[in-house]
Amino acid sequence: MNSSTNMRLRLPLLCIILEVILIILFGALVEYNDDTHAKMWNANKSHSATRDDYENEFYYRYPSFQDVHVMIFVGFGFLMTFLQRYGFSSVGFNFLIAAFSLQWATLMQGFVHGMHHGKIHVGVTSMINADFCTGSVLISFGAVLGKTSPVQLLVMAIFEVTLFAVNEFILLSMLGANDAGGSMTIHTFGAYFGLMVTRVLYRPNLDKSKHRNSSVYHSDLFAMIGTIYLWMFWPSFNSAITNYGDPQHRTALNTYYSLAACTLATFAFSALVNPEGKLDMVHIQNAALAGGVAVGTAGEMMLTPFGSMIVGFLAGTISVLGYKYLTPVLESKLKIQDTCGIHNLHGMPGVLGAVVGAVTSALASPGVYGHGLQRVFADAETGKWNPQSRGGFQAISLAVTLGMALFGGLVTGFILKLPIYGAPPDTHCFEDGLYWEVPGEEEGHELNEVATPNEMEKLNS
Amino acid sequence: MNSSTNMRLRLPLLCIILEVILIILFGALVEYNDDTHAKMWNANKSHSATRDDYENEFYYRYPSFQDVHVMIFVGFGFLMTFLQRYGFSSVGFNFLIAAFSLQWATLMQGFVHGMHHGKIHVGVTSMINADFCTGSVLISFGAVLGKTSPVQLLVMAIFEVTLFAVNEFILLSMLGANDAGGSMTIHTFGAYFGLMVTRVLYRPNLDKSKHRNSSVYHSDLFAMIGTIYLWMFWPSFNSAITNYGDPQHRTALNTYYSLAACTLATFAFSALVNPEGKLDMVHIQNAALAGGVAVGTAGEMMLTPFGSMIVGFLAGTISVLGYKYLTPVLESKLKIQDTCGIHNLHGMPGVLGAVVGAVTSALASPGVYGHGLQRVFADAETGKWNPQSRGGFQAISLAVTLGMALFGGLVTGFILKLPIYGAPPDTHCFEDGLYWEVPGEEEGHELNEVATPNEMEKLNS
Amino acid sequence: MNSSTNMRLRLPLLCIILEVILIILFGALVEYNDDTHAKMWNANKSHSATRDDYENEFYYRYPSFQDVHVMIFVGFGFLMTFLQRYGFSSVGFNFLIAAFSLQWATLMQGFVHGMHHGKIHVGVTSMINADFCTGSVLISFGAVLGKTSPVQLLVMAIFEVTLFAVNEFILLSMLGANDAGGSMTIHTFGAYFGLMVTRVLYRPNLDKSKHRNSSVYHSDLFAMIGTIYLWMFWPSFNSAITNYGDPQHRTALNTYYSLAACTLATFAFSALVNPEGKLDMVHIQNAALAGGVAVGTAGEMMLTPFGSMIVGFLAGTISVLGYKYLTPVLESKLKIQDTCGIHNLHGMPGVLGAVVGAVTSALASPGVYGHGLQRVFADAETGKWNPQSRGGFQAISLAVTLGMALFGGLVTGFILKLPIYGAPPDTHCFEDGLYWEVPGEEEGHELNEVATPNEMEKLNS
Repeated sequence: MNSSTNMRLRLPLLCIILEVILIILFGALVEYNDDTHAKMWNANKSHSATRDDYENEFYYRYPSFQDVHVMIFVGFGFLMTFLQRYGFSSVGFNFLIAAFSLQWATLMQGFVHGMHHGKIHVGVTSMINADFCTGSVLISFGAVLGKTSPVQLLVMAIFEVTLFAVNEFILLSMLGANDAGGSMTIHTFGAYFGLMVTRVLYRPNLDKSKHRNSSVYHSDLFAMIGTIYLWMFWPSFNSAITNYGDPQHRTALNTYYSLAACTLATFAFSALVNPEGKLDMVHIQNAALAGGVAVGTAGEMMLTPFGSMIVGFLAGTISVLGYKYLTPVLESKLKIQDTCGIHNLHGMPGVLGAVVGAVTSALASPGVYGHGLQRVFADAETGKWNPQSRGGFQAISLAVTLGMALFGGLVTGFILKLPIYGAPPDTHCFEDGLYWEVPGEEEGHELNEVATPNEMEKLNS
Repeated sequence: MNSSTNMRLRLPLLCIILEVILIILFGALVEYNDDTHAKMWNANKSHSATRDDYENEFYYRYPSFQDVHVMIFVGFGFLMTFLQRYGFSSVGFNFLIAAFSLQWATLMQGFVHGMHHGKIHVGVTSMINADFCTGSVLISFGAVLGKTSPVQLLVMAIFEVTLFAVNEFILLSMLGANDAGGSMTIHTFGAYFGLMVTRVLYRPNLDKSKHRNSSVYHSDLFAMIGTIYLWMFWPSFNSAITNYGDPQHRTALNTYYSLAACTLATFAFSALVNPEGKLDMVHIQNAALAGGVAVGTAGEMMLTPFGSMIVGFLAGTISVLGYKYLTPVLESKLKIQDTCGIHNLHGMPGVLGAVVGAVTSALASPGVYGHGLQRVFADAETGKWNPQSRGGFQAISLAVTLGMALFGGLVTGFILKLPIYGAPPDTHCFEDGLYWEVPGEEEGHELNEVATPNEMEKLNS
Repeated sequence: MNSSTNMRLRLPLLCIILEVILIILFGALVEYNDDTHAKMWNANKSHSATRDDYENEFYYRYPSFQDVHVMIFVGFGFLMTFLQRYGFSSVGFNFLIAAFSLQWATLMQGFVHGMHHGKIHVGVTSMINADFCTGSVLISFGAVLGKTSPVQLLVMAIFEVTLFAVNEFILLSMLGANDAGGSMTIHTFGAYFGLMVTRVLYRPNLDKSKHRNSSVYHSDLFAMIGTIYLWMFWPSFNSAITNYGDPQHRTALNTYYSLAACTLATFAFSALVNPEGKLDMVHIQNAALAGGVAVGTAGEMMLTPFGSMIVGFLAGTISVLGYKYLTPVLESKLKIQDTCGIHNLHGMPGVLGAVVGAVTSALASPGVYGHGLQRVFADAETGKWNPQSRGGFQAISLAVTLGMALFGGLVTGFILKLPIYGAPPDTHCFEDGLYWEVPGEEEGHELNEVATPNEMEKLNS
């Protein structure tokens, strides 16, 4: 064993170089948008100043942004603390790569989605979009959790954010697809990208760390903090960048019902697939969230609560069955070691969400949407509206996303395979001690020593 | 010991049947309301479209909804994790029955509160109301925590949600009562319903599980996550469905002061009732919240910060004294085994809140409220306004609630006593292992093995 | 050893007396402001009633308030749970002194900032300001954590809140300083006040409790809950009381970028200063937040994302270096025992924030701000505007704050040194057992007993 995992120079150098590059690019390219610039605040003279202020997009997007922010940092971060001795890395590396990714995403998304006289405009909407892109990276992180160094993760984020922005541009701007909650752009992309990376990084001797690749009682409770926050705020996630008014309201409502139905399916199938009828924390922590993924595309459409609940129920079902029957096969046959089971939480439910979105788009009609049609489907305004072709474009978007994710993951995987990033040895995967100062054991007897009534009696007498 | 607690068929069957029924009923009966329907968005031509969008109820209710949602899933869920080996069940069953109840409540509340041409209309207000109803079920869950199977809990939720909706209809629609924060409809109802259920389910030999019916150090910290979230967001809870503008603002303010005063009372009396002057986590986790319960009815009225603080101080005091002196008596004399002490947190403070609401109503006058009188007391508009009669109706509402809760709890308790639900044996109450796959012990020595400087030195050399 | 730490009478007496005084003063002095008073709701006849309601300050401030509230109670509370056996006290005493301070701050800030016909007006803005003042007390708490009784902490809060209000009045009202996010009023003041208190309370024999003055694995994870919530909601903190519209929006945006850059600096320098290149949880938990502190003054100005990122990067760097190199020196040379290292998280970054604010003010011009100049710098309206003098006043404000904090901490420290408050002995610092009923040890073997497949098989057969 050698010092190959020592981060003393590698991590600081990479972090500092990246941040300096970010700062320089931000200095050259980024400026406040009209809603955040002091000079623009009263440019629009058609309203009184006060009216303008109250209609600042801040008040209509920022609460959603904060919910999304909680999902990214607490939700993803704590969901991955289920591993018994990888809690520092789960929440810590999640923190690091998210903080980097949201800055890099601001630039990449700004580049491809159109600059304003050579400048990238930022405000609460760009903050939400950057957090969304970050979510995609964190999904991929779930596949390689415990088997990668922080340097590898940052390098992965550089490439994944870039490709995410390109894929998003193709889908939203070139194909005119709808995907407000990111079933395709975020979940399908992040999942298949990550699965391909972990396939390339396949470790035949990972069973040497098998005893650490599991949870303990309290680590499962920490993970539930992540699960519950993701579950509660998913309505905000899916609705965060929809159009104002009824589309945003409807998206939140649909997601709420999908998640509720998904939760019942998860508990049902978790008990059903267990020989003793016992519930499995892995399913509850993950599959109960699949309902949010699966309405990420159709949530803003007239899916109805009825439709949302059917989709959610299906998503929970396939997710639990995936954890039980598919994940072992993926590992043994396809050599895909998926630590968090992202294929079950983001992969299959993401594809389901894309299909549901395509079908719901194909069924859209003025009879159902009225004048709201243009607000949900932007190209309905152009007169070229045709529900069937819209459904087709949605399906093409899914195919493009899968292609981009698999290709991107393949290339990135090979880059990450270079032996220069300090990846953990097979014997020390899923172990905080490699990259963190880990405190000693709890001195339980001493805690008790003072806590027992006898001891305290002496102390107080 | 036999397989009576095996959930393999019972839980999946019940979950799937319930969800299928829910989906069918939602398909037949539920539709988007005007603020969530694509077709309605610009129906009101008196405003410009933009104006309409900014005034969508989503923007004025959704942040409150999310705070309430956090209270239901994180607040209630983690508050109950104080038990040393019942954390999975506390947060997990809380999750399950809440996800079911909010769907069932949408239907039940829709039925009784008035349908629109045979349809139940949904939007953010129905989401808040469904979460409120769910809160009531979770309060009852606190009384039977550790002694019931998930199947029993779902059956309890079916009945409790239904009766909640009926009671709420009688109070709010027939008696014209005020109860925005639910001192009566949520807390008093949930508490006395749950206490009656646990009375009927009395276990004379529960002391066989006594060693598990207590906390450990870290489980108390997990419970504090629940406590603090409930405490922080209670202002949002009480104000979530009040009228727009000053009533909502005032309710949040009153609740904030009531809780602050309650917290000082809780710490004071917790130390005072302990022989060694030590604080008890049970009190801090629960009694500090009683101030939110106790202003659930009067919070929207002109209670003043002064009045709110007096009410909060009283609530904290009676709650601590209840835990110390009343709970043991309830168990030994009345055979009421109240795991979380909901009588002290929701029962007595709920009744106090109802009384405070009746008195504050009886003292209301145009001199204090001005034109705001009609906005707080809906029937003030009808000309039949009479503060004394209003106070009387509030008092009648409390009596009706107590009657409904005790009767409903009695019937439900006997239904839950049937030996078909897989209830835990007396020897295995408060034990996750019955219904959950529980991971093995933490391998503390190995964690240390890698973490010690010596070990790592070897690894890195 | 005697009963000197017994809280049975001291704590209840102090809590009850304080709360009674608070209630009396609130009864005499506090009333609803125009946005919370039922009578005022439609006083302004120039708008329709509905318009008024939608423009209630509640809807533009309350979501920010709730984020701030989470930072105060969850953020500060859990951040300090890193100590292995001081979790109850960290989150519990944080809860107690915050609940007291926010009431006391409402009065003190109301007094000095101007009463309305002898009355203090309250609403969501006063709630935010009271929470801000509370934050300052909690910062000082971090310096003395583990070494003070709850009675001492309440006494400290009485004095610190009072001086905070005076200092805030001098800065904001007399010197016309800008400090929306409180780099000076909250962080610098709270830090140097607390450092002076802990200097006066210096314990030469504190090493007797050294074995408890450190973390264990799970306590570090609990602390990360605090860290992440503080990090996520800091944009809401800095923007909570800025002017409506673009200033609020811009402040949140600047803070978001500053924190992201700060996080990369923190990870970089944490690994760099460790001989083995390992990350230190103390740095991640604390230094990653310094970016929020350091843009507390300039965040509302046209700092630009570029400027914010530079400030954040610097703040993270000096904070990590402070933990590594300065804290040991402060203890050994200056006898300042700073449990949480508040000098590194709030002290130095607060001073940096003040300097950045002074420089950014001095560079402000109509060319950059347009008509927005008056909205950011209130005195620009008076015609006496002069950027250089403004920068000078900002610098004077920092000096005043440092003076007030050091003087106030000195006096308060000596008051807290009186031997009447039940301070812990040197041998029992950092120990919950002194002031709390602490539960016994976890019975790990029994948990396992039921959880092992063999056991459960027997149970189920």
